[in-house]
Amino acid sequence: MTTVGILGGGQLARMLALSGAPLGLRFLVMDTEPDACAGQFAPLLVGDYRDQRALAEFASKIDVATFDFENVPAESAQWLSERVPVFPNPRALAVIQDRLAEKTLFRETGIPVPQFVDVASREGLEDAVATISAPCILKTRRLGYDGKGQFRIKSEGRATIDAAWKALGAQAETVGLILEAFVPFERELSVVAVRGRDGEFRTWPLTENWHVDGVLSASLAPARVDDALAVTAFEYAQRLAESLDYVGVFALELFCRDGRLLANELAPRVHNSGHWSFEGAETSQFQNHLRAVLGRPLGATTMRGHACMLNWIGELPDADAVLRVAGAHWHDYGKSPRPGRKVGHATVRADSTTVLAQALRRVGEALGRQAQVAPVVEALAGAAS
Amino acid sequence: MTTVGILGGGQLARMLALSGAPLGLRFLVMDTEPDACAGQFAPLLVGDYRDQRALAEFASKIDVATFDFENVPAESAQWLSERVPVFPNPRALAVIQDRLAEKTLFRETGIPVPQFVDVASREGLEDAVATISAPCILKTRRLGYDGKGQFRIKSEGRATIDAAWKALGAQAETVGLILEAFVPFERELSVVAVRGRDGEFRTWPLTENWHVDGVLSASLAPARVDDALAVTAFEYAQRLAESLDYVGVFALELFCRDGRLLANELAPRVHNSGHWSFEGAETSQFQNHLRAVLGRPLGATTMRGHACMLNWIGELPDADAVLRVAGAHWHDYGKSPRPGRKVGHATVRADSTTVLAQALRRVGEALGRQAQVAPVVEALAGAAS
Repeated sequence: MTTVGILGGGQLARMLALSGAPLGLRFLVMDTEPDACAGQFAPLLVGDYRDQRALAEFASKIDVATFDFENVPAESAQWLSERVPVFPNPRALAVIQDRLAEKTLFRETGIPVPQFVDVASREGLEDAVATISAPCILKTRRLGYDGKGQFRIKSEGRATIDAAWKALGAQAETVGLILEAFVPFERELSVVAVRGRDGEFRTWPLTENWHVDGVLSASLAPARVDDALAVTAFEYAQRLAESLDYVGVFALELFCRDGRLLANELAPRVHNSGHWSFEGAETSQFQNHLRAVLGRPLGATTMRGHACMLNWIGELPDADAVLRVAGAHWHDYGKSPRPGRKVGHATVRADSTTVLAQALRRVGEALGRQAQVAPVVEALAGAAS
Repeated sequence: MTTVGILGGGQLARMLALSGAPLGLRFLVMDTEPDACAGQFAPLLVGDYRDQRALAEFASKIDVATFDFENVPAESAQWLSERVPVFPNPRALAVIQDRLAEKTLFRETGIPVPQFVDVASREGLEDAVATISAPCILKTRRLGYDGKGQFRIKSEGRATIDAAWKALGAQAETVGLILEAFVPFERELSVVAVRGRDGEFRTWPLTENWHVDGVLSASLAPARVDDALAVTAFEYAQRLAESLDYVGVFALELFCRDGRLLANELAPRVHNSGHWSFEGAETSQFQNHLRAVLGRPLGATTMRGHACMLNWIGELPDADAVLRVAGAHWHDYGKSPRPGRKVGHATVRADSTTVLAQALRRVGEALGRQAQVAPVVEALAGAAS
């Protein structure tokens, strides 16, 4: 009997546990919150990730550890890895947790990346804005996610720089800051990929993503891109995975501008833009992540038709209105509603882009959420089936 | 928050809970065994199905009840149904629990059925054998499953009748006996179907089944039958569901002889011959059963390619050998090995019959189980893709 420990007990841990049950796995989830939603379907250990006693108990009950959440303190991951196998490895996690280290890795491995400068002080910010030019974005180096810890600098005037520093300056000494060029991209893409313990590497088809207020709103797979662009994206992902000796699933977010790819960020875990793989791929990202961290054979990542994922943020819409649409699948994370919180998603799967577009329109109309599906429907209208 | 109670905590309850999690459901499983495998992923209440205190506790914690197991005492189901909604309804359960009532229903609804006679005594058995002629099968009216509680009568001689009576006669007064004609069928088929609370009725494509020693060994969907035969089978299933006011998933097992269908039995629950629907259909039998008992919209039952399920009886073969085959999916029920016990299954899914046959051959060779896949591969060789 193999028990997988998961640090973090949100929807990713929950979906990992549900996907790992058919492999005969048991799970232990560790989270700081007693009502973490993964606890509805797996045993939950409540504790602080920095509490060595809790970590020791966690380590004593599991065979391998992995993450639902990339902001587990790197020292905790390191401490744990001295007791049980931990995948992805703590070094990879530490690099990815720090935007500066991450973007430096992109640059070192020859992956195009928007211009960036480390910012340590108010003066440093002024110099950085002068170097990069507006528009640009000031971001925390660590602990940012879903658009949090970011300030967009639209002009080079002193007032804007003052406002940016006021918003984030205090974090220069705690989590660090980085200034990045703003890329007026045409498309956001992501590569969801998996690398096994033996180095075997597979990717799911490229996914196209739409964000609203910095949070993922919809994902479409396969993305409308030519093969050469997809191959380039897959090569970038493989290069990064190999340089980090990464094991498990990860997502590489990319901007596409004038037919050229620029790396945005790496997520060291199963990723929201890969949720469609439950129904849309032969093997889901969740099951392949578990297969990878356990050193077991990876499953086929081929598509089953076309799939679009719609995120539910804050509260769930009417499930039955979605379930009435053929090919629509519902994923309620078992969380209570809260503004900005990811509480569920739906995936619509179809054998052709035409049928997918029709089903999406029906979902949009049934929920009064035409705006959420519109960009995907428009994208599909331009794609061959 | 809706909690579904499941009477019986085996693999069917386990797969129901795993499939219901994305609908935001919670579960409570009741079983007589503290190590019931569904308890690994859902709260488990240990108790006897006849214990009213345990049933009352169960009823107090759930919103609706259903079954993993058809041999829950009909009185317990009835008692429960006076406190919470129970689907399928206890009357349907009572009919299906009794082979005589079940076969009488088949006859009354105009569904062809092998000849059968109620047997109450040793003399009655002799008369019945004289009426039906050998070969025939003596079966217990209640509590039989997977070929248990059956005795095959190959000749009409006194010695054979003595042996049959010795094997099962003591049960004439407890669970009752029935003598059935033996049908030398060419194929075993099953209709897995679902009926909603509002009467909506859907079936998955017809499934072809192969049994070994009375236990299901392999299922193939869609079955190699012409449309007219499938339509007839679906009509039979709908007629039965309507006459029982059945709500939920059920399976109707059929024999096919000379292009004609004969009803064998009805299983009032999700069924082993529908396990392939996890990967092979747009919506699985497990999720549609839950949608039905909750009065929610039913999901599409269309195929995603072609699928074959292989049952693992007694002990699991090498999972990794199966997982290496593209399109193969593993289902370990988390049970300890025991002769004759259903401990897991695999489903192989492919877009064509040709690829499915190749994948099955690879699985058979990798496991040294060529005999298990051979009849399916042979069937596929005769089918168009």
